[in-house]
Amino acid sequence: MKLTTTRSASLVLAAAMMISPFAANADETALAPRKVPAKTLQVPTADISPGMQKFIAAPLNPAWNNQFSTGAEWRKFADHQAIKINAGIPDMMQRMNVKMERSTIDGVRVYTITPNEIAPENRNRVLIHEHGGCYVLFPGETGATEAIMMAGFGHIKVIMPDYRMPPEAYFPAPIDDGITVYKSLLKTMSPKNIGIFGTSAGGALTLEITLRAKQLGLPLPGALGSGTPMSDATMVGDSFYTNKLVDNVLVSPTGFCQAATVVYAKGHDLKDPLLSPVYGDMHGFPPTILTTGTRDLLLSNTVRVHRALHRAGVEADLEVYEGQSHAQYQFDDRVPEAKEAFTEIGAFFDKHLGK
Amino acid sequence: MKLTTTRSASLVLAAAMMISPFAANADETALAPRKVPAKTLQVPTADISPGMQKFIAAPLNPAWNNQFSTGAEWRKFADHQAIKINAGIPDMMQRMNVKMERSTIDGVRVYTITPNEIAPENRNRVLIHEHGGCYVLFPGETGATEAIMMAGFGHIKVIMPDYRMPPEAYFPAPIDDGITVYKSLLKTMSPKNIGIFGTSAGGALTLEITLRAKQLGLPLPGALGSGTPMSDATMVGDSFYTNKLVDNVLVSPTGFCQAATVVYAKGHDLKDPLLSPVYGDMHGFPPTILTTGTRDLLLSNTVRVHRALHRAGVEADLEVYEGQSHAQYQFDDRVPEAKEAFTEIGAFFDKHLGK
Repeated sequence: MKLTTTRSASLVLAAAMMISPFAANADETALAPRKVPAKTLQVPTADISPGMQKFIAAPLNPAWNNQFSTGAEWRKFADHQAIKINAGIPDMMQRMNVKMERSTIDGVRVYTITPNEIAPENRNRVLIHEHGGCYVLFPGETGATEAIMMAGFGHIKVIMPDYRMPPEAYFPAPIDDGITVYKSLLKTMSPKNIGIFGTSAGGALTLEITLRAKQLGLPLPGALGSGTPMSDATMVGDSFYTNKLVDNVLVSPTGFCQAATVVYAKGHDLKDPLLSPVYGDMHGFPPTILTTGTRDLLLSNTVRVHRALHRAGVEADLEVYEGQSHAQYQFDDRVPEAKEAFTEIGAFFDKHLGK
Repeated sequence: MKLTTTRSASLVLAAAMMISPFAANADETALAPRKVPAKTLQVPTADISPGMQKFIAAPLNPAWNNQFSTGAEWRKFADHQAIKINAGIPDMMQRMNVKMERSTIDGVRVYTITPNEIAPENRNRVLIHEHGGCYVLFPGETGATEAIMMAGFGHIKVIMPDYRMPPEAYFPAPIDDGITVYKSLLKTMSPKNIGIFGTSAGGALTLEITLRAKQLGLPLPGALGSGTPMSDATMVGDSFYTNKLVDNVLVSPTGFCQAATVVYAKGHDLKDPLLSPVYGDMHGFPPTILTTGTRDLLLSNTVRVHRALHRAGVEADLEVYEGQSHAQYQFDDRVPEAKEAFTEIGAFFDKHLGK
């Protein structure tokens, strides 16, 4: 029996089906949606620490459906949220054995997190940390928890721009602030010794700032760490839907993070690569490590960036953690998966940054 | 406000929650399951080729709930399925520009797939291909489609053991056959110039044969490619449940593949690392590339192996393809994602194998 060689799409598909035994009844004419029945998910425990199991077991983020429409409302919510977070930071800094100082760099507010013991190979290196929070949350030191973990676990100096957010400023202020800090560092450092990293909006900003540096003709940093990036603000990405109401942090593609991003974008085209970096041209990007979890609403938009980087010939590593929802690897330094994630990221920077 | 430092688990958790703003109402006492409502999933299209979109859109594998309880029944089904697949192989070989020969190596039936143009760097290298099929499917040349793609896209010679399957033989016959072929190659080749790869049961066999080689004190191969491995036969792995009835190939943790594995294991403990390699000791393993998709029922059991390898200090790369269910990257050589996947795997082998 010989396969037909006609170019008709449906016959090509029929031929394809002969090689794929598991799709013999495929609909040849339409991309039919799939109905998935309701299910009850147990908390996974295999290869997952008890502390992380608790995060995975947590109920849906109670703020998941906040739909504030102004920068002022988001800031009020962010300030309220910050009280609790900030209360935990002194002990966290002690556990991580770091100190933190506030200053400005060329007018941009920054926090500098310095480990009490910088690793010898990191003496001439610095990481810029872009904090997350859907471009509206975690003002001031509140945004520094991930920077503290990176500095502590990685034994490396970290500078976090406390970038302007709504209502103080809107897109592209955080990108501009990141570029300002980066350019200032370039005055005294090789770009190869500078890394940029962050999670969620911070993972997106890491990519956006690098895209912007390309646009500006700046030399690019030596390596990037993009954690579960908000790489597509247009609600495209399959896990927005497969992991809807499975991810207990972001919860839904139409939840608080989308609402916040719309406020931040202030009418700007959401498909602009500086808002949706998955659509950016990543040729020439430095080596990049990406991090996500199997329940992450942004699993797809992390792996899409990974694939885009590979398709552009860029060295890129992907770490996916079992059972984790959005950004949970950086929820608590005392959970072993936090040490694991930042040790992976630190090792990646060590491998790729100049000395 | 200072955090308490008591060691009580619930208070430690409460403290953790102060750092994680998104889980403030976490249940502190139990790992409560999560109820997920029914949903309708559209077929993702962004960054996905039209051919792959068709595979993603295909209805649930009509054979997903086959529950045969004997080797003879599985073989009858496998032979029936093989007719269609085999019909497509000659054209596929032509497209891939390879030839295939059947022979035996120390009593093991094998197919040797040789590209008409072997890349210069691959002249002294060979890959052993372990085919998939839940340890019961794809007898004879039917199992060779992935080997043909690897040989064709990677320009490298591939030997596929046509390993014994039920009812001819049961666990651990496929592992023994793989070891026999590997040992035979070792007589004339450096282990560093030999790679092993495969998908699904073949991804598991890749790991199982390497674990067995360790047990036997054999030198280990130079690199591995483990595609969406059936790394846990005990139905543990979160995506068994999150992707249940989302994955259109394996469909369910209690579907045909589990039934087949139970027949194959013939009463042997399913948690034996030679049946569930995620529980094996992977210290000393060669560099390994893992491949899966975001809708894959075995997403978790792929990333669990990735993490186990990293935790054992082994270099391991992870490739996750947007929207794909189980093993779809190797369904059809004409779909661009197949070329992409085997080009990634080939580049990985090229980087790590000896010359």
